[in-house]
Amino acid sequence: MSLSTVLSHVDAQLPAALDRLSGLLRIPSISTDPAHANDCDAAANWLVSELKSLGIKAEKRATPGRPMVVGHAAGPGPHLLFYGHYDVQPVDPLDLWHTDPFAPQVQETPKGRVIRARGSSDDKGQLMTFIEACRAFKDVNGHLPCRITFFFEGEEESGSPSLIPFMRDNASELSADLALICDTSMVAPGVPSIASQLRGMLKDEFTIHGPRIDLHSGHYGGPALNPLREIARLIASFHDDRGRVAVEGFYEGVHEVPAELLRQWQSVGFDEHDYLSSVGFTQSHGEAGYSTLVQQWARPTLEINGLWGGYQGAGSKTVIPSEAHCKLTCRLVGDMDPDSLREKVRKHVEDRLSPDAKITWDQDLEGSPAAVMNTARPEFEAARQALSDEWGREAVFTGMGGSIPIAGYFKQILGLDAMLIGFANEDDAIHSPNEKYNVESFHKGIRSWARVLDTLAR
Amino acid sequence: MSLSTVLSHVDAQLPAALDRLSGLLRIPSISTDPAHANDCDAAANWLVSELKSLGIKAEKRATPGRPMVVGHAAGPGPHLLFYGHYDVQPVDPLDLWHTDPFAPQVQETPKGRVIRARGSSDDKGQLMTFIEACRAFKDVNGHLPCRITFFFEGEEESGSPSLIPFMRDNASELSADLALICDTSMVAPGVPSIASQLRGMLKDEFTIHGPRIDLHSGHYGGPALNPLREIARLIASFHDDRGRVAVEGFYEGVHEVPAELLRQWQSVGFDEHDYLSSVGFTQSHGEAGYSTLVQQWARPTLEINGLWGGYQGAGSKTVIPSEAHCKLTCRLVGDMDPDSLREKVRKHVEDRLSPDAKITWDQDLEGSPAAVMNTARPEFEAARQALSDEWGREAVFTGMGGSIPIAGYFKQILGLDAMLIGFANEDDAIHSPNEKYNVESFHKGIRSWARVLDTLAR
Repeated sequence: MSLSTVLSHVDAQLPAALDRLSGLLRIPSISTDPAHANDCDAAANWLVSELKSLGIKAEKRATPGRPMVVGHAAGPGPHLLFYGHYDVQPVDPLDLWHTDPFAPQVQETPKGRVIRARGSSDDKGQLMTFIEACRAFKDVNGHLPCRITFFFEGEEESGSPSLIPFMRDNASELSADLALICDTSMVAPGVPSIASQLRGMLKDEFTIHGPRIDLHSGHYGGPALNPLREIARLIASFHDDRGRVAVEGFYEGVHEVPAELLRQWQSVGFDEHDYLSSVGFTQSHGEAGYSTLVQQWARPTLEINGLWGGYQGAGSKTVIPSEAHCKLTCRLVGDMDPDSLREKVRKHVEDRLSPDAKITWDQDLEGSPAAVMNTARPEFEAARQALSDEWGREAVFTGMGGSIPIAGYFKQILGLDAMLIGFANEDDAIHSPNEKYNVESFHKGIRSWARVLDTLAR
Repeated sequence: MSLSTVLSHVDAQLPAALDRLSGLLRIPSISTDPAHANDCDAAANWLVSELKSLGIKAEKRATPGRPMVVGHAAGPGPHLLFYGHYDVQPVDPLDLWHTDPFAPQVQETPKGRVIRARGSSDDKGQLMTFIEACRAFKDVNGHLPCRITFFFEGEEESGSPSLIPFMRDNASELSADLALICDTSMVAPGVPSIASQLRGMLKDEFTIHGPRIDLHSGHYGGPALNPLREIARLIASFHDDRGRVAVEGFYEGVHEVPAELLRQWQSVGFDEHDYLSSVGFTQSHGEAGYSTLVQQWARPTLEINGLWGGYQGAGSKTVIPSEAHCKLTCRLVGDMDPDSLREKVRKHVEDRLSPDAKITWDQDLEGSPAAVMNTARPEFEAARQALSDEWGREAVFTGMGGSIPIAGYFKQILGLDAMLIGFANEDDAIHSPNEKYNVESFHKGIRSWARVLDTLAR
């Protein structure tokens, strides 16, 4: 049968699909709270049962934490791995909810119909868009259009401690041609988006050691090396007066945004003024010559996240402390290498240390490169076209300022490119009271996946 | 009778004087601990009785806290006000004491005889040097050589909350020609010292406000104004690369040390290398062109005492905080005016603020000018000669890096110049376990005061 028959079926089945989603939303699968371990188990069972109802071989798989769900559907076409998570955030403060977070309701709002419940957007509603698209193919054609491996975890909201070991232990079972992830937002309402570049991250922390002990500033103020002044000077040296990072070699591996991608980004209606003024700024304070959106998606940063030393209590204390501390993170883009970057940042600081200042670095290191998807693969352009067709406006390859570790893990552990397509909106209140998912997101999300699966199957 | 008779009497009476001091040391007059309020009362009574035994009209005077002791001795010559304090620091950690802190013992040590007890140096031993000198005059001549007002407080170790109100309420009773204070150290062992200039202090605190709320550094890193970077840049701007404070007009009112005073300072055997290396430094980090001693005594400073913002816990948090905080103190010398200096420091910061950064300043302000004694008064040079005669080496007018508020209060409230003469040594372990006072300090201290009183009486 043709795609249009499948899409019509999706339209007709929307009330039933919302009912099924509600069934999953009723399960309070809060992964971080051990009191809800049974509920996470119940959500996993629910998904296994849902997949089996599509004729898919599926099972719950134990981990030291919450269980995984893995399902395998035979089919023609390419082999896809679909990822989502069934666990949800805690609901407190509960008194700010206007409805029971685990009693989903479809409500009319000034901005259209929504389904309101914890997890409606993050991520139960999103993952169900994919399952419902599969159900439509199954109902209409009797089988799925592609070979698909389903992979759901139940610890995404609590740090995914079991994810990497499970992926390593089951790498061959989870192998595929391409990963699909439905856990992201649209860049603006109604603008279909494929996140094709996620910034990486480097974390580091250092302590400046000055005098052997805390000193009295009346006795040693002046002659003493004050670690607070030292650390301020070092931090001030990280950036030049045009907002560029002054660490030698920092920008190695950074690429300018291709003109075609820049054109797509300029089309999304990102309002730099609104974005900045919403948090109290009248202007951008970042790298000169780059728009705020380009800075967020495609430029590296070095930011200070914590800084402390000396006396912080009420009143004053005339101390020159023996130590000062700094926590920093870098966001990485393009081909920037976290290990090499760490060396450069550390060298920058150590080259500028005053005599008698000593430095210690945190040994608990973390670093991940940027995840830049290979959008030259034909599947990416095909999916972009499918999304454009569904939403009636050009879909865009977007960047993301934050990091989504799962995309990096797919690449590192399974060697898989990931295509991140999501239909959430920025106002969905994920992690907050009164979380909702637009019924439009759910409905057009299902239709979007139907179109994407149809085009990938060709 | 002649001075030499008085001095011989002091020598002969030393064992008895040590006994009397021991009587005072046995009273655990810890002012900060309400459980010892009665002990403070007992120490005040002890002093009243001691003064009365010299024929001095003395009484305990109630305050909202611990009592004052005021005594008046008629006499020829100038009118002197002598200040000391009978309260002591707490003794914990008690297990580090080798003897009972309130069972004074005279001990032989490799560095000579000491009397060991809490308060032996700070300040009971010191104040008793003056009383014992008076006793010697009384015993030998039947009267004191000068008119003397005795003024002892019992809250010096707990912030002196009653001192200023008491001085204001009793200003005429406490008026005199010159104040004498015995609560300081000798600049080096065996080097008699008159502290003639104490640095003043300005305290201030500011908060830099950036974004309206804490931001995610993945989303806003770069375009956002990061208060931690802002405050580091501001702090780094306070000093130039020669260690001078870069605040415009900061050095107004600062005078170079007169050549004669510098000569005295150079004679004291201050070992810059030892002073710095004892706290871990191989060199001075202060103002180029000034010795460490001159920096400490006669140069102003601007030091950062506390600095904080963002995340300080374990691990990392990708936050751009909305605020950053800084506590600072300046040390003032010469004629620097604290109010004017505060304006200059604030202007320096505000002139350098980035757009969108806001600043708030602490409103709980404190500032005191330097206390520079009028050493041109003949009493100062006379006292210096008397001390030189006693110790067999030239006495010096010294500076002090820290502040002794009492000297400023005498000037502000009573209009009195103060002469600070003390016989403590840096190794006396005041405020620490096993506090001691050298018997030499006690003995020669009594003799020193006898010589000073004798010369002032002329």
